[in-house]
Amino acid sequence: MALLNDTLELIKTVDDSRAHEIQGRLDNKTKPPGSLGRLEELAKNVCLITGKDDPDVSKKAVFVFAGDHGVADEGVSAYPKAVTAQMVYNFVRGGAGVNVLARHVGAEVIVADIGVDHDFEPEDGLRIVKVAHGTKNMAAGPAMTKEEAVRAIEVGIGIVNEFAQKGYGIVGTGDMGIANTTPSAAIAAVFTGLPVESVTGYGTGITDSSFANKVSVIKRAIEINRPDPADALDVLAKVGGLEIAGIAGVVLGAAANRIPVVVDGFISTAGALVACELKPEVKSYIIAAHRSVEVGHMAVLSRIGQRPLLDLDMRLGEGTGAALAMGLVDAGLKILREMATFGEAGVESDKIN
Amino acid sequence: MALLNDTLELIKTVDDSRAHEIQGRLDNKTKPPGSLGRLEELAKNVCLITGKDDPDVSKKAVFVFAGDHGVADEGVSAYPKAVTAQMVYNFVRGGAGVNVLARHVGAEVIVADIGVDHDFEPEDGLRIVKVAHGTKNMAAGPAMTKEEAVRAIEVGIGIVNEFAQKGYGIVGTGDMGIANTTPSAAIAAVFTGLPVESVTGYGTGITDSSFANKVSVIKRAIEINRPDPADALDVLAKVGGLEIAGIAGVVLGAAANRIPVVVDGFISTAGALVACELKPEVKSYIIAAHRSVEVGHMAVLSRIGQRPLLDLDMRLGEGTGAALAMGLVDAGLKILREMATFGEAGVESDKIN
Repeated sequence: MALLNDTLELIKTVDDSRAHEIQGRLDNKTKPPGSLGRLEELAKNVCLITGKDDPDVSKKAVFVFAGDHGVADEGVSAYPKAVTAQMVYNFVRGGAGVNVLARHVGAEVIVADIGVDHDFEPEDGLRIVKVAHGTKNMAAGPAMTKEEAVRAIEVGIGIVNEFAQKGYGIVGTGDMGIANTTPSAAIAAVFTGLPVESVTGYGTGITDSSFANKVSVIKRAIEINRPDPADALDVLAKVGGLEIAGIAGVVLGAAANRIPVVVDGFISTAGALVACELKPEVKSYIIAAHRSVEVGHMAVLSRIGQRPLLDLDMRLGEGTGAALAMGLVDAGLKILREMATFGEAGVESDKIN
Repeated sequence: MALLNDTLELIKTVDDSRAHEIQGRLDNKTKPPGSLGRLEELAKNVCLITGKDDPDVSKKAVFVFAGDHGVADEGVSAYPKAVTAQMVYNFVRGGAGVNVLARHVGAEVIVADIGVDHDFEPEDGLRIVKVAHGTKNMAAGPAMTKEEAVRAIEVGIGIVNEFAQKGYGIVGTGDMGIANTTPSAAIAAVFTGLPVESVTGYGTGITDSSFANKVSVIKRAIEINRPDPADALDVLAKVGGLEIAGIAGVVLGAAANRIPVVVDGFISTAGALVACELKPEVKSYIIAAHRSVEVGHMAVLSRIGQRPLLDLDMRLGEGTGAALAMGLVDAGLKILREMATFGEAGVESDKIN
């Protein structure tokens, strides 16, 4: 608990007193003011988050946390639980979607077993930081203890602290865990107060009858556990997941280190929401990567005050959207760094009307 | 006219008979079917456009056509006409927005003076393919002759033919021309039949009174010239622009060479619309890069049946959106090329419900 408390203590709201000055630098580039829209906004926000005039995001990491879910036994997912561990091997060997998209933007993928129901042999490229062999079935009781939830958050914080030390300038979140849209929808429902039906989606592609079952399982989990929305750790422990806790830790750790954190889709945003409920000041360190197809995603984004960058009908998770969005952050910073000013280029900047 | 006619003759609708087979390859990758959304769609479309199983888009070019507009004399733009030539020098020296974003995605910028009202000295990195020293004021008569319009289209076709020969696998369109949202809005109004007010925007940032003037100038241009929407060359010549004609040529040339063409924002899409009105079969070769802030853009995209990839509040033109979107095309093709299949990765592909 010490690491979590120390981290919460370190997090301050982003100081935006230099926003006007940075926008002035952007407005002096050879383009109509504001005409590069959200690329300019990204450049400005990363300057403010880091407190630097020319932030270096050349070293990028996407953290993919993998965990299993006892609630998978309720038939809420289209795929068997064994796929979580199988996909971990795929991440480590570089063959998954997130590996391809991370390579595309020059980011590393860090794979962490935070709660898979499988015993991995140690191997290069896999961090075994297991808190438990998956969560318990939240439809029958708490998914985990509060101590486990805190330990999993601290795993996320610890990894970010390590990469911040190594000079990484931007981090992204990713997830793997069969059935994990179910706890994510539960977290969304509890914190937003919205009906379970309105934040529950089809995940990896379940049938209509499985969907009805998924909704009733989530309702049962909330009824049985009575998570307290004013106590984020209570919600996370009772209806969350270990990878979701790890992601919450990454978001908190990034904010404490003044590093921008690119948050992936629905599951990652559920983790970010837990972080924001623990410490609202972290909101301004978050870059929302994309709008997921998952129906509950926009409600969670709205709760943390974020507008996603991309809208490409994606719903894979793993950090795929976060990786793609990192490319846009890079682009925004290059605008600030590389574009000529009106003076340098000899272009008239004065408007005539 | 021979090059234009020959090119139109070569263009066939994209053959989509292998769409199912290509989607099958994507569905065999380690992810739920369709879960990478529009990245999968891009990969599939580029395979169909090129007729190749593994299209090579490593060589990328963004063509930036620069031209002046006589209608600038009517006070429709926020910037003086001299900025067109000044920006051409900026493109050639690599300091403009499109240079930065093209470098970001590994694309070359090809700068072409197709109609600037300035005499450039020959220099590396600038193609002087001038058809005229700008258009005439369309609010007082035709912007150009039909012969000039055809010549400008053929400049665009010729450049794409050259780059296709050199092995470029994807091309993008870009524009520079003070006042060119005015002819673009006129083209949009004539072809869509929508009221001028609903397709006219604030361009680089004019005032409300300038906006009212811009609308009345466009109305006058249409009234005086009476462009025939059934005759695309008539519309282009009377209320178009030389860089818009060059862009139309790039779109036609790309389709004739079976190369995907990434179309930038409002001005580029006006050029693409001219191409589509000349030959509707070109539509399936177009990738719409982004949704511009310019209000008329969506109407034009809808007329050519395109949904933009990005929506980042951009309104700079130059090909900036096209460059960014090329990065997404690359990402989609890497998914098809690099992701492991279920069999390769030993991941179960069978759904349980």
